[in-house]
Amino acid sequence: MISEILATGDEIRSGTLVDSNSAYIAQKLEETGIAVVRHHSVGDEIPVMVSVLREIASRADVSIVTGGLGPTSDDLTAEAAASAAGVSLIQSPEALEIVESFFRSFHRPITASNIKQSYLPEGSTCLPNPIGTAPGFMMKLGRCLFFFLPGVPSEMRRMLSESVLPRIEALQGGVRQFCRVKTLTTFGLTESLTGERLKDFSKIFPMIQLGFRAKFPEIQVKFYLRGTDVNQVEVLIRDASHWVSEKLGHKLISSDGESMEAVVGRLLSQKKSTLAVAESCTGGLIAHWLTNVAGSSDYFLYSGVVYANQAKVALLGVSQDILNRHGAVHEETAREMALKVRQITGATYGLATSGIAGPGGGTDEKPVGTVCIGLATPADVRAYRFQYRFRNRDMNKQIFAMTALDLLRRELMGVNPAEQP
Amino acid sequence: MISEILATGDEIRSGTLVDSNSAYIAQKLEETGIAVVRHHSVGDEIPVMVSVLREIASRADVSIVTGGLGPTSDDLTAEAAASAAGVSLIQSPEALEIVESFFRSFHRPITASNIKQSYLPEGSTCLPNPIGTAPGFMMKLGRCLFFFLPGVPSEMRRMLSESVLPRIEALQGGVRQFCRVKTLTTFGLTESLTGERLKDFSKIFPMIQLGFRAKFPEIQVKFYLRGTDVNQVEVLIRDASHWVSEKLGHKLISSDGESMEAVVGRLLSQKKSTLAVAESCTGGLIAHWLTNVAGSSDYFLYSGVVYANQAKVALLGVSQDILNRHGAVHEETAREMALKVRQITGATYGLATSGIAGPGGGTDEKPVGTVCIGLATPADVRAYRFQYRFRNRDMNKQIFAMTALDLLRRELMGVNPAEQP
Repeated sequence: MISEILATGDEIRSGTLVDSNSAYIAQKLEETGIAVVRHHSVGDEIPVMVSVLREIASRADVSIVTGGLGPTSDDLTAEAAASAAGVSLIQSPEALEIVESFFRSFHRPITASNIKQSYLPEGSTCLPNPIGTAPGFMMKLGRCLFFFLPGVPSEMRRMLSESVLPRIEALQGGVRQFCRVKTLTTFGLTESLTGERLKDFSKIFPMIQLGFRAKFPEIQVKFYLRGTDVNQVEVLIRDASHWVSEKLGHKLISSDGESMEAVVGRLLSQKKSTLAVAESCTGGLIAHWLTNVAGSSDYFLYSGVVYANQAKVALLGVSQDILNRHGAVHEETAREMALKVRQITGATYGLATSGIAGPGGGTDEKPVGTVCIGLATPADVRAYRFQYRFRNRDMNKQIFAMTALDLLRRELMGVNPAEQP
Repeated sequence: MISEILATGDEIRSGTLVDSNSAYIAQKLEETGIAVVRHHSVGDEIPVMVSVLREIASRADVSIVTGGLGPTSDDLTAEAAASAAGVSLIQSPEALEIVESFFRSFHRPITASNIKQSYLPEGSTCLPNPIGTAPGFMMKLGRCLFFFLPGVPSEMRRMLSESVLPRIEALQGGVRQFCRVKTLTTFGLTESLTGERLKDFSKIFPMIQLGFRAKFPEIQVKFYLRGTDVNQVEVLIRDASHWVSEKLGHKLISSDGESMEAVVGRLLSQKKSTLAVAESCTGGLIAHWLTNVAGSSDYFLYSGVVYANQAKVALLGVSQDILNRHGAVHEETAREMALKVRQITGATYGLATSGIAGPGGGTDEKPVGTVCIGLATPADVRAYRFQYRFRNRDMNKQIFAMTALDLLRRELMGVNPAEQP
């Protein structure tokens, strides 16, 4: 069975709103074994909507349409569907009950514009909306079974899982082919260098389609494969992950989509170790990432965002003499920051960043993109300097923070720290 | 002139990646006066790509296609375009020079897979890519002029503005109708409450289409209007902004798309004041946002991410007695944190957060979504408690951080702080 997805609405058409519903629906359909062939988006214009509905009706087995079921004048999807089918809109008692009960539960009077939402194309079946006023509906057009859902993501997701996917699974019957997507996360190689290290992959694993995605500053390696036997697919994925891991070495951060901060957190937990951070140029981003991981309070003690030099001296205890001799961006300063933040917190590891994120502040000797990273361990304290080419403040903050966490990750894994990350 | 947009790639088709390029391109085209009628997405499959290219070629005047120009085996767009046009791929000297010069500038040897990127459809014109290895190209297919750009957003955006939009503007000639989009940023009301306050807008400004967008945790109010006279449009926008500002009061953060952290930074600079932050539940996010603003080192002194109670006591000087009596999440603790971070840094303002972002850690008395915020000023120190309904850690961190910055913003603007934000 093949499917197409349609998102409607002037906001999406004009680019004011990024359509994230279609990606969500595509993932769910692919997981259910339905191949998604195309996505479409059109605005709130009946002739264009009718034309794309008829195109889909001639090609796909199943289609999910989102948006345009609300109470306002630009909500035209039911009218377009009726027109594409050559039928009228008639009031649906089930749809009226959904709208009325929503207002009853909030003790608010129903409005005329909401009554409009109870009119559905003749011959369609109402799909309940348990959390909003807009009922959905399903109807056959040409060879294709269409499901019309609201554009509000929470309502769409709930109705997709409760009313749509069970119906599609029932249609499939018997042995279902399913799709599996596997994500491996890497850091430290460009996309093309990653691709070259894996260039023999398709010879060895012809069943798996390989994809690459730059999710700055990481590069993700993706496997896409279809099958009917879960065990067979899992064995193949395990073998392919192992092969990729051998080719990428410690550039591979995780084989299950785990983020850098989650990997670092897991390694710290396993070693019953704690971490304290001193951030200058990364400005709190390392702490923000670390604390996005639930349970990070077990190992993350503190980050001092010592943006100002006076804070480096007064609150971390960095020596004014080192700052005077080397400046804020220097290996010696980063080393001292890492040492001091480890000392004042009693953490197992101290990690420190100082650099020039830009756009201003660069010099010939220390251009924008320069970062010095200090790492204090129970055994020693080391500092590194990296030079990135980005002129963008946000990108620099991200790659600086990722490089610092990667140094700590290698330390925790026992990878030779002398090797350039 | 009408246009259609095509995004290619298995990641978009299968929903692994949300396509944000198409929305960006649609906005730029609409601003240029080109109506966007449809968006499409298809996977890395030549027959499907050829078929959608031919459909677009029969309907649109202009089309922008993104993705599939990279060096790896799943990059098939040039091949599909050649096939749709019935021509071959031939090596383009301009494209080869782009790829070679990219590698020269990084002193790296060029690879065979990158050489592939210099092959373009016969009869197409190469479009330079100043920041990546993938050259773009333009070619006429049917009635439509196609522009093929890389899928990497930074490269696509740069090439769109430098190579594509100027060519499209030249094609339009004469008096152009342009589209203007104006964004006002609000915080503190839901989308429907914002809509209710502005319900008379369309009666007073019928020329302007009003839109709302939840850009969590902000709500954006958007004006869309078309015109040929720049001055007339600007006067209308000024009047409408003024009207909205009166209706929304201090819920309006900015009338020019300025972010909360930029507004707070501007107000601090104007008052020659400085800020220090103590973050528990927001985990560094306030510092990260503040330091995203270039020049923030002028007013932002320090954030202590005191995630652990021992850090609150040892590094901020919060009294162990207060923590014992009230716990980490309490107005008294937040007040003490704000006071102490102001004292140890000598900043004009001290801002502090302590709360329960979840998913765990909630109690009946202090459920997930509870946050206490302390604000120390030269005159006094105050603390507030808020209760949000989100069960999501990331959303809670964001709304906690935004609420804290909004309290400071009101303080800096002299808005009555007793009024609930």
